[in-house]
Amino acid sequence: MISVADATGRILGAMRPTGTETVPLAAGWGRVLAAPIIARLNQPPGDVSAMDGYALRATDPGPWTVIGNAPAGHPFDGSVGENQAIRLFTGSLIPAGADAVAIQEDADRDGDRLTLREAPITGRHIRARGGDFATGDMLLSPGRTLSPRAIGLAAAANHPWLTVHRRPRIAILATGDEIALPGDPISAGGIVSSNAHALAALIAAAGADPVVLPIAIDTLDSIAGTADQLGGIDLLVTTGGASVGEHDLIQKALATRGFAPDFWKIAMRPGKPLIFGQLGATPVLGLPGNPVSALVCAILFLVPAIKRLSGLSDWHLPIARGILTRPLPANDHRADYMRSSLIASANGELSVTPHPRQDSSHLRVLAGSDALAIRAPNAAATAAGDGIDLIRLDQGLF
Amino acid sequence: MISVADATGRILGAMRPTGTETVPLAAGWGRVLAAPIIARLNQPPGDVSAMDGYALRATDPGPWTVIGNAPAGHPFDGSVGENQAIRLFTGSLIPAGADAVAIQEDADRDGDRLTLREAPITGRHIRARGGDFATGDMLLSPGRTLSPRAIGLAAAANHPWLTVHRRPRIAILATGDEIALPGDPISAGGIVSSNAHALAALIAAAGADPVVLPIAIDTLDSIAGTADQLGGIDLLVTTGGASVGEHDLIQKALATRGFAPDFWKIAMRPGKPLIFGQLGATPVLGLPGNPVSALVCAILFLVPAIKRLSGLSDWHLPIARGILTRPLPANDHRADYMRSSLIASANGELSVTPHPRQDSSHLRVLAGSDALAIRAPNAAATAAGDGIDLIRLDQGLF
Repeated sequence: MISVADATGRILGAMRPTGTETVPLAAGWGRVLAAPIIARLNQPPGDVSAMDGYALRATDPGPWTVIGNAPAGHPFDGSVGENQAIRLFTGSLIPAGADAVAIQEDADRDGDRLTLREAPITGRHIRARGGDFATGDMLLSPGRTLSPRAIGLAAAANHPWLTVHRRPRIAILATGDEIALPGDPISAGGIVSSNAHALAALIAAAGADPVVLPIAIDTLDSIAGTADQLGGIDLLVTTGGASVGEHDLIQKALATRGFAPDFWKIAMRPGKPLIFGQLGATPVLGLPGNPVSALVCAILFLVPAIKRLSGLSDWHLPIARGILTRPLPANDHRADYMRSSLIASANGELSVTPHPRQDSSHLRVLAGSDALAIRAPNAAATAAGDGIDLIRLDQGLF
Repeated sequence: MISVADATGRILGAMRPTGTETVPLAAGWGRVLAAPIIARLNQPPGDVSAMDGYALRATDPGPWTVIGNAPAGHPFDGSVGENQAIRLFTGSLIPAGADAVAIQEDADRDGDRLTLREAPITGRHIRARGGDFATGDMLLSPGRTLSPRAIGLAAAANHPWLTVHRRPRIAILATGDEIALPGDPISAGGIVSSNAHALAALIAAAGADPVVLPIAIDTLDSIAGTADQLGGIDLLVTTGGASVGEHDLIQKALATRGFAPDFWKIAMRPGKPLIFGQLGATPVLGLPGNPVSALVCAILFLVPAIKRLSGLSDWHLPIARGILTRPLPANDHRADYMRSSLIASANGELSVTPHPRQDSSHLRVLAGSDALAIRAPNAAATAAGDGIDLIRLDQGLF
C-alpha cells in the first residue's frame, strides 16, 4: 500500500495536457488558455472623458461657447479654441485642443453659453489613452482558467477567437454482473449502477467530457473489449465489479491488452483498492466498486488528474480548515476521509461534525455531507475544539 | 439612491422560479430539483456481504463444506445447513440459513473443506437490507442543486428521469453607438463590446442560458425594438450605452413599451446607475455601461437573481472573511467593492490587499483580482490587520 500523497504524485506525473483548439470567444468560459492574449488595441482608444460634461481649455477665463456635441462613438473632428467647449459624455474622445473636462453638475448652460461654478483643472476627468491596457500588452497568460472577467478582457482586447486546451475526454467503464442501468430490469440481488452516472457528473463538473461505456459483465472478454475502443480517450476510469474480488478481473482483463500497472492499493479509507497504470498511451484509473469509495477516490485523484489534462499544471484540491465538534479516537495506518457536516459561524469559522455512520456503503450519507474531514495515518486522538483539514463538498464542484 | 441591501431585496423579491421539465438523469447535474426523489427500492436490496468470504452459520462447530459459489448478481438459491458454507463476495446476497460472513483472510480452504482461524460472529460482515435507504425514503428534497453525489444517489434509487427547474433564459442587450463586436470594424473612438460576452459567461457560470441580443444603437427605436422580442425570456439585462447620459435612453426607450421602473440608483461604488423594473411580465435589470461597474453589479445582483429564477429560494452570495494588509481611509456614503488580491496562509487565513487602482474603467485590474473587499457606507478608517468581508472571485463562479 502506498500513501495518498505518493499515489497523487504518480497519477499526476503521468498526465499530459491535451492538445489545443481554436474556439469562439463565447465558448471560452471555463476553458484553460493555451496561448497568450495580447492586447490588439489601446483601451481606452484615446484620451476620453470619465464623466458627462464639457471639454475645454482649463486656463481659459470663460464664459465658454459650446461649439459642438460629441457623444461616445461620434467624436468631434475639429479643434477647441479659446473659450470654446464641446459637450461630451463618459467615454467620448477628448477633442483636439481641449485639456480638461468640466462636469455637468458644475455647469450652467444658456443656449450656447456655458459658465462654470468650479474652475476646471488641467487633466481632470480625463482617462488617458491606454490607461487600462495598451496595444501589445500581455493581458492573459496561458495555463489559466478563463473566468467571465477574463472573457470580458479578451473581448475588450479585440479577440474573437481563443486558443485553449481541448476538454479531456474521460471514458467510464462500470463492470459487474449485478448492476443494471436506472430504469432497466434488475436481476435478483442486483443493484442499480450509480457510479457511472455520479462519475460522469463529476467529470463534467471538473471540466471534461464523460463517455459512459456500456456496462461490462464479469468476463475477461467483456472487460478487455473496452480496451480496443480507447481511440480519442484521454483517460479510462474503471469502477470495479466486486463479484470476484475487487479489481482482480479488471487487472487480468486489461493485462491481455498489455496493461502496465503502476500501483493498486492505497493506505486510505474509504477506498483501499485503487489501480493506476497505463494501457498503451492511455492512463487507466481503476476505482473501487463501492459507490462511496469510488466517489471519494474520484474527488481525490480523478478531479486533479482532469485539471492536469486540461492544462492546469499546478492545480491542487483546495483544503479548508475547520474545528471539530466532537473528539475522535486515534487513527490507524490508513488516511481517513470522514463524511462530515459543516456549520459556518458568523465570523466564517467552520464547525465540523463527522457523521456517526462512516460505513463506505452509505451513499446517502455521502450525498448529504458538506465535507470530507481528513485524518492523517496514525493521527493521535483529538478533542472537540481541535482543528482539522477539510475537503469542502458544498461549493459546487463535487 | 437606495442601499445595496434594499436593492437586493427588491430585485430578488421580483424573481419567480422558472417552470419545471423532465430531464434524463445524465443531464441533471447542476440543475435544481423540483420534485422529491423517493427511493424506489431498498439499498442494499437484501442482506448482503460486506466482504469477500464465506456465508455460514456462526454457531456451527465446523469444519465447513463449501456447497456453492455466489458472486454478486448470482445469488445462491438453496439454503445453508449445518457446517455448510457458500463462497461469496462483497455485495453478494446472504443465502437463506446463513447468519454470518467469515472473511477470506481468516479462511483456509482445501477443495470443498473450509476451516477458520477466527470464530465467526453472528451478523458480522453483513450489511442489512435497506441499510443505506429503504423503498419510500425521501432521499433528495426539491429546491437543492444536484451535485454529482446526488446524481449517484438518484441513480442508485432507480430514477432514470429527474424533474428540475428550467434553466432561466437571460437576454443581454448592449447599447451604444461606440461599441463593436470583437473582430468587427471599429469606428473612430469606438471600443470593443466586452460587457455582453463577460455577462454571457457569468450567466452560464450561474446556471442560466444567455441570449446575446444584437447591439442596439443609441436611438429609442433601436432599443425599444428589443422589448418586442422578449417572448421566452425570463430576465432582460441591459448594459447602458454611455453616450447620452447613463441609462436615460434605456429608460425612455423601454417606457415606450410600458416599462415600470422600481429604482435606478444605488449607493455603491463601482456602479451607482443601476435600473430595475418590470416590462410586462419580464423583469429588467439595467447595468451600468462601464465594464467594471457592469460586472461588479452583475455579481452582486444578477447572479443571486439567476439563482432565485433557478428555484433556489434562499441562495445568497457567499461572504468570506480576510485580514487587510494595509490601512484604508474612512468610506463615504456609498458601499465600496474594492478589487483586491488574496494570499492564503498555511492555516487558511486570507490576507487582503486592495489594488491601488480602483478606477472603475480598469477591466484588467478586475480580471486579475481575487476578491472584492466590501466596505460599508460610512465605514470608519481601518488599520492593517483589521478584518474585512470579501466576495471571493477566485473560486470558479465569477
